[in-house]
Amino acid sequence: MRLALALARRAARRGEVPVGAVVVAPDGRVLALAHNRVETDRDPTAHAEILALRAAGARLGTPRLVGCDLWTTLEPCPMCAGAVGLARIRRLYFAAADPKGGGVEHGPRVLASRGHGPEVYGGIGESEAAGLLRAFFAGLRG
Amino acid sequence: MRLALALARRAARRGEVPVGAVVVAPDGRVLALAHNRVETDRDPTAHAEILALRAAGARLGTPRLVGCDLWTTLEPCPMCAGAVGLARIRRLYFAAADPKGGGVEHGPRVLASRGHGPEVYGGIGESEAAGLLRAFFAGLRG
Repeated sequence: MRLALALARRAARRGEVPVGAVVVAPDGRVLALAHNRVETDRDPTAHAEILALRAAGARLGTPRLVGCDLWTTLEPCPMCAGAVGLARIRRLYFAAADPKGGGVEHGPRVLASRGHGPEVYGGIGESEAAGLLRAFFAGLRG
Repeated sequence: MRLALALARRAARRGEVPVGAVVVAPDGRVLALAHNRVETDRDPTAHAEILALRAAGARLGTPRLVGCDLWTTLEPCPMCAGAVGLARIRRLYFAAADPKGGGVEHGPRVLASRGHGPEVYGGIGESEAAGLLRAFFAGLRG
């Protein structure tokens, strides 16, 4: 999660919503790193999780990331939660919960609504991730 | 929808699940065309809708496709439904319903769970789209 938080800080420095994500292989190798790039890429789907899952698929040469884990600094939105399920991620670790935009423990609870899906572990590094987001949005309003 | 169905047929010829999607600008121009490319691209997120939304964002130079419509041959899954919401799509038109994997009228009903979201019109060209999918999966099993 330390690595994902470093990516989130980098996103903030670039004017992107500070979210970072890391895909880890079954053997513990880091397969893919990404931060939010929606504005930079002019891409509504360029959330950190989507970019990390895409990069991991390209690196492994398969769209099915069986046995891989995803670490992300914010509870995934419904789009990203759906992608986590499609990618066959084994364990999802996230830091800050997102009661408004989240899709895992909040809102449509995308992963819970199906019979399968990853194990989910929330709240790891939550205060740092939430602090980054609060500072970012306070800066936008300031 | 005719164009989206032609893209779905092309996907089937390439061994991809036959789904096609088209983004149309407020003035009726076709902005982006895509079909499913999950296997070809080794990308778990490469559904037709995601690819079309990404291409439309790149073409318009913004991640917010305000006033644009999305036409797709299958009810979007939760990932794609989430992306449709994030992209600020105005109207979502789809052909075949997907009681098992859909995320708009079925499953987590991603768009209905929030206060905002596009107008949704299902069932346009449904029999042709459903026939393509049935033939594709029958071929896989055959």
